[in-house]
Amino acid sequence: MPITIAERLLSLGHALANASAPVANYVSAVRVGSLLYVSGQISQQDDEPAFIGRLGAEISIEEGRQAAESAALGIIAQVAAATDGTLSAVARVVRLGVFVASSPDFTQHPQVANGASDLMVAVFGDGGRHVRTTVGVASLPQGVAVEIDAIIELAD
Amino acid sequence: MPITIAERLLSLGHALANASAPVANYVSAVRVGSLLYVSGQISQQDDEPAFIGRLGAEISIEEGRQAAESAALGIIAQVAAATDGTLSAVARVVRLGVFVASSPDFTQHPQVANGASDLMVAVFGDGGRHVRTTVGVASLPQGVAVEIDAIIELAD
Amino acid sequence: MPITIAERLLSLGHALANASAPVANYVSAVRVGSLLYVSGQISQQDDEPAFIGRLGAEISIEEGRQAAESAALGIIAQVAAATDGTLSAVARVVRLGVFVASSPDFTQHPQVANGASDLMVAVFGDGGRHVRTTVGVASLPQGVAVEIDAIIELAD
Repeated sequence: MPITIAERLLSLGHALANASAPVANYVSAVRVGSLLYVSGQISQQDDEPAFIGRLGAEISIEEGRQAAESAALGIIAQVAAATDGTLSAVARVVRLGVFVASSPDFTQHPQVANGASDLMVAVFGDGGRHVRTTVGVASLPQGVAVEIDAIIELAD
Repeated sequence: MPITIAERLLSLGHALANASAPVANYVSAVRVGSLLYVSGQISQQDDEPAFIGRLGAEISIEEGRQAAESAALGIIAQVAAATDGTLSAVARVVRLGVFVASSPDFTQHPQVANGASDLMVAVFGDGGRHVRTTVGVASLPQGVAVEIDAIIELAD
Repeated sequence: MPITIAERLLSLGHALANASAPVANYVSAVRVGSLLYVSGQISQQDDEPAFIGRLGAEISIEEGRQAAESAALGIIAQVAAATDGTLSAVARVVRLGVFVASSPDFTQHPQVANGASDLMVAVFGDGGRHVRTTVGVASLPQGVAVEIDAIIELAD
């Protein structure tokens, strides 16, 4: 029996999140050839926006790491929903775009983004190693601390 | 006779914008295989940068929506210029990146971005449904409120 | 003998930078088909983060241009490291994402980004003409002024 993404997450202490529905006239994932483009997913907890505030202000580095991990869990939920949900459906996490709500003097965005990158490698192994662009933005939807989008290479 | 993008826009009350020329050493669109990458297009009116200011400050949500729509009209103008200009040249709007100039406490970026997403679906129907990443940035070229880039899947 | 990227850079007065290693659980470049995705590269000098500050505040337009050029040199170093290092390995610079740390009232982001675009065309000729998205962000890793990511079409 192929291992599912949900099973791997569980072994890491995470539940598979619900794949959130877009709140507007767009979709959560579009496949073109072997690539799956995933919409920006905001940091969340129990299906609600969470980690409200900015790095360098209300949110600590450790909270930011958790926020990034929660947004990455949202990405993984979308990937599971767009495939048969098995680990082997994912050939490669190609790219993460990590947007960190930040004060003008914040400098440790990579430490925050690691919360997402580390999860991807924990879940997908070498196939979880991705390119990454991490920047500090002025603000994010719902006031969350982190938003992440992704490009995933599918196996079939 | 195939319907043109210009005709569809007209039926929606919009004129096909002029495809703006880049102001530097880059180009407006690059095709790789079936994908057309489009450079960031800023909010504009009558071929001039428009909707100057930030959301959460000088620009209202409704103005922001219109700014996003105008930037999306810029994207559509580039797509028309890079193809034969027919609706059927576009297989899918794959992805929009929506950058909203915002104050640090602004939270309603999705409502602004909907001005672009709604237009894409009005023009291209189901093929207009895309993934989207919406973030709030510190400032944008010329001081505009919205900039949007795109990846489009072409039909041939 | 094919011309190398290092030779072309030298003829333009630049040294080939060291391809920086990611400081975390991600990689500098991922190839999918003919496309090479490159992680965000920050402005640097002598392998250290450089041009610390924001446009519209501590950093002038001319310094910003140089910062963008240095980040583009980082992109080129990654491309050279991921290929055989010859100029002809690159078919096309498809896209640059240019993130400029900016004050809320800064408006001249394109002039900054030109430092990167001009270098790409100087090095790769017509194949260096790319689409570009330039935005002003709140802050960047290590406090640098410019970060750039890229999509490159490879020749083979």
